[in-house]
Amino acid sequence: MQGLFISFEGLDGAGKTTQVQLLTDLLISSGHKVTVTREPGGTPLGDKIRTLLLDLANSEMCAETEALLYAAARAQHVAQVIAPALARGEIVITDRYTDSTVVYQGAARTLNKNQLEALNEFAVKGVMPDLTILLDAEVALLQSRLAGRGECDRIEQEDVKFHEAVRQGFLALAARHSRIKVVPALGEQSDVQAAIATVVRQFLKERRI
Amino acid sequence: MQGLFISFEGLDGAGKTTQVQLLTDLLISSGHKVTVTREPGGTPLGDKIRTLLLDLANSEMCAETEALLYAAARAQHVAQVIAPALARGEIVITDRYTDSTVVYQGAARTLNKNQLEALNEFAVKGVMPDLTILLDAEVALLQSRLAGRGECDRIEQEDVKFHEAVRQGFLALAARHSRIKVVPALGEQSDVQAAIATVVRQFLKERRI
Repeated sequence: MQGLFISFEGLDGAGKTTQVQLLTDLLISSGHKVTVTREPGGTPLGDKIRTLLLDLANSEMCAETEALLYAAARAQHVAQVIAPALARGEIVITDRYTDSTVVYQGAARTLNKNQLEALNEFAVKGVMPDLTILLDAEVALLQSRLAGRGECDRIEQEDVKFHEAVRQGFLALAARHSRIKVVPALGEQSDVQAAIATVVRQFLKERRI
Repeated sequence: MQGLFISFEGLDGAGKTTQVQLLTDLLISSGHKVTVTREPGGTPLGDKIRTLLLDLANSEMCAETEALLYAAARAQHVAQVIAPALARGEIVITDRYTDSTVVYQGAARTLNKNQLEALNEFAVKGVMPDLTILLDAEVALLQSRLAGRGECDRIEQEDVKFHEAVRQGFLALAARHSRIKVVPALGEQSDVQAAIATVVRQFLKERRI
């Protein structure tokens, strides 16, 4: 029995963490076994790599190093957490996955997208999401949300142009891949939750899960 | 003016660190500007990645993660240290480089070599050694040398079969690439030093440096 793999993508501040938790609660209450995880991180080693990636002290980090560190954390995440949970037949929900690399390092850092996709392939060995929820919102509105959270990490403190490139990168990916469903992220939390639930229920129905 | 790039490769215990230093002294005394460095590491961020790679606590690390972390440290090393020194016209000597990835993760961990070469290419962006000194010796003899050094790190504590696969992997690479010169590593230190000096002098002469 092979489980089901759902990823959440979108800019920081779009509400991914909250919505991942709300969807998890919904699926568990419907009787599903769910493994919830996040990137970068998701494993003890991955969390150490996450620390390197988000630490403002590492401001000299070059774009290739950044992409390779994300891929390293992801390889460990797949091997240790995602693939075993899918093999047990569970629903795996991850906060960020391969699309983030293609968008953040490709669209925004302008690394070569074919090389980034090859990197992802090397790291995940075919373990790709069945369904991706892209939480989308205007950059300016998200920035004002984040401003309320206090100090930014190394990625969050990039400028508006960077985040705009990320947003457009995600939307371009969604246009290319049918597994990616765009959900507007700036309504009431309960409305966003309901929109996601509708998408997921439809998906489970199609898959007869 | 573009400098000259020399890498040292070989198993742990083959004397790379010592011979790198001796060659550096020789080149400096001949009036060359030399930058000496090592992998994994060579930069502040690279040293943090090196710590993750060699820490015995990270024994659950999967082969792909290991290869990606080496590549991440290398990308930073090239961008921050190697490429700038070469651009200044210096001789750069590094203790390990791309061949170590192909051999340790390819021949010994049996990852796909084409994917590893693509990883290297992504990390180094064309910055490859002009000359590689491969210090070669029988595994059993090196193991007895290392035994005198005290506790082993995560890579050193692999078994003899692993190290034998590494040795054969290096020799196979040397047969394929004319830049790699094999130097027997188990004679007197001064004999090894003289053999390396001969190879390097010949190389500098050919390049008219």
